[in-house]
Amino acid sequence: MIKTDILIIGAGPTGLFAVFEAGLLQLKCHLIDALPQAGGQCAEIYPKKPIYDIPGFPEVLAGDLVDNLMEQIKPFQPGFTLGERAETIEKLEDGTFIVTTNKGTKHQAPIVAIAGGLGSFEPRKPLLDNIEKFEDKGINYFIKDPEVYRNKKVVIAGGGDSALDWSIFLADVASEVSLVHRRNEFRGALDSVEKVQKLKNEGKINLITPAEIVSLNGNGVLQSVNILKTAEVQEQIELEVDHFIPLFGLSPKLGPIGDWGLEIEKNAIKVNTFDYQTNIPGIYAIGDVNTYPGKLKLILCGFHEATLMCQSAFQRIFPDKKYVMKYTTVGGVTGFDGSKKEAEKAVIKSID
Amino acid sequence: MIKTDILIIGAGPTGLFAVFEAGLLQLKCHLIDALPQAGGQCAEIYPKKPIYDIPGFPEVLAGDLVDNLMEQIKPFQPGFTLGERAETIEKLEDGTFIVTTNKGTKHQAPIVAIAGGLGSFEPRKPLLDNIEKFEDKGINYFIKDPEVYRNKKVVIAGGGDSALDWSIFLADVASEVSLVHRRNEFRGALDSVEKVQKLKNEGKINLITPAEIVSLNGNGVLQSVNILKTAEVQEQIELEVDHFIPLFGLSPKLGPIGDWGLEIEKNAIKVNTFDYQTNIPGIYAIGDVNTYPGKLKLILCGFHEATLMCQSAFQRIFPDKKYVMKYTTVGGVTGFDGSKKEAEKAVIKSID
Repeated sequence: MIKTDILIIGAGPTGLFAVFEAGLLQLKCHLIDALPQAGGQCAEIYPKKPIYDIPGFPEVLAGDLVDNLMEQIKPFQPGFTLGERAETIEKLEDGTFIVTTNKGTKHQAPIVAIAGGLGSFEPRKPLLDNIEKFEDKGINYFIKDPEVYRNKKVVIAGGGDSALDWSIFLADVASEVSLVHRRNEFRGALDSVEKVQKLKNEGKINLITPAEIVSLNGNGVLQSVNILKTAEVQEQIELEVDHFIPLFGLSPKLGPIGDWGLEIEKNAIKVNTFDYQTNIPGIYAIGDVNTYPGKLKLILCGFHEATLMCQSAFQRIFPDKKYVMKYTTVGGVTGFDGSKKEAEKAVIKSID
Repeated sequence: MIKTDILIIGAGPTGLFAVFEAGLLQLKCHLIDALPQAGGQCAEIYPKKPIYDIPGFPEVLAGDLVDNLMEQIKPFQPGFTLGERAETIEKLEDGTFIVTTNKGTKHQAPIVAIAGGLGSFEPRKPLLDNIEKFEDKGINYFIKDPEVYRNKKVVIAGGGDSALDWSIFLADVASEVSLVHRRNEFRGALDSVEKVQKLKNEGKINLITPAEIVSLNGNGVLQSVNILKTAEVQEQIELEVDHFIPLFGLSPKLGPIGDWGLEIEKNAIKVNTFDYQTNIPGIYAIGDVNTYPGKLKLILCGFHEATLMCQSAFQRIFPDKKYVMKYTTVGGVTGFDGSKKEAEKAVIKSID
């Protein structure tokens, strides 16, 4: 059982910043995210895209924003349960919650903050018989650790940035990279398309287009895929592979959280506007996952919501304590790791 | 008459960021501030202090945050009326407001956003007969343009960072810098105290302590000050000066805005939490100047409030237009100066 003060569901920018604000109040956080790394959409979908509306950044790459937030919260040593989806919630008699993931990991906290963005990002799966049978046994929808593919035969399917970028990256790692797409045209950053062209010309990427993977073969683990070439003359080939990585994008789903008894409106969780608490006391919803009058789905709004939520959480956990807010410029930041950042203090010194 | 879409009173971080959000909606802004430069407290009171709780910045100097915001809003060409205090407001029959400053500058806009922080910062003035007579005629409470003091005789009074820092700066500009303080001890950054000690030893700053300025002399313009040295043996001297700069700190005052008919609670303006509008339709209050249930006086909250305010202002100005929010990552940022920032577009390109 993982125990913490605030259990945050969703490790996107809003969830990450909540760790910082909670830390200022000496509250510990643990985050659950279905994606294999922290950062939410910013890290998974558009890490290299610039964002222009984060206050104080005329331009910042989404991936860099996540890196900065990770750096900012480091002193508060958050815990992470990544690659798992929060599945069920249970309220104990002492008022605390138990949240269990799809892989059975259990977390206990007096406060749950749902920062789930548009929902958990589920991979779009190709319609193939028996695909579930080979999941994690040759088929991966996310690349968590590229080293898994070292000196292996890999087939990637897809025609967008993910398919292009991972083909480029794995060309140097895997023993064989095949890229299958149902069209000859790819849609992605010009630079990526050109790199794939070059690697194809050099024989480092085996490009199979227009084509589709039509069936999977293996005994317990994936051994080969059948590919239907759909050019004028159709032809089916069998390709021996260790790994098949379908990269057809992610689709956000509110998922099991939708069944937790929370008031839902247009696929978002209704909250009040003074502490962003839901209809269930002790459960908050912050960032893109919530809705209230005037709501804007912007990262900067999530930051504000996370901050007010933490103040309210503090009052719930310590109903008798009066917290007096200190500005970080005045009080500094004291990490759980013993670190201390603070403004240089003024001296009182005579000049003679 | 200065005309604009949103007239922002207060050019601190919240007011500045409102320019950006308004700009995304193609609304123009003009800012009024009693201080001589933009940035509010961050620029005037603690430009060199680090802030740790701006999301995405593990640490940022207050002055750098202001510089970043100025850079971020540059494409939207805001207007500024600086060094003037918003004094009166009048509502015309067409629903627009006229705001007049203490110097008589008039501004007209359909929307007024008060982003006045803790209020307009008024200098703490020394109690000296006739001091008003010499204001701007030898006496300055703020240093707007240091060049004014080139080759002049300057006396600075005060014992804090401003007095120390301006003495150091003007030692290279003025023909003579005297620093008067009622104690021998100064309170400021160690580095500044040590620099003043060094400049005093080199004869570049004339240090007069413990001492007080007790009277002002001049005919129309300031010509000299009388200084009472308060060491064991008291002694009065007369010092010829071109400029006297008392730097005894600033004290925030809600000031004339308190008489605009707005609902006030504990020296702050009451607003609702969906668009931060006051009891007077068309007048909003954002940032530290406002109050609502759960309010936290944090810069990051001001950013959020500014953003929701702009959306509401847009609806007030264009009641029939439906604005569809586009993410800057998708839609980019188009400046009023014709500039365009946008993410690199995906290409669709065949690989053969």
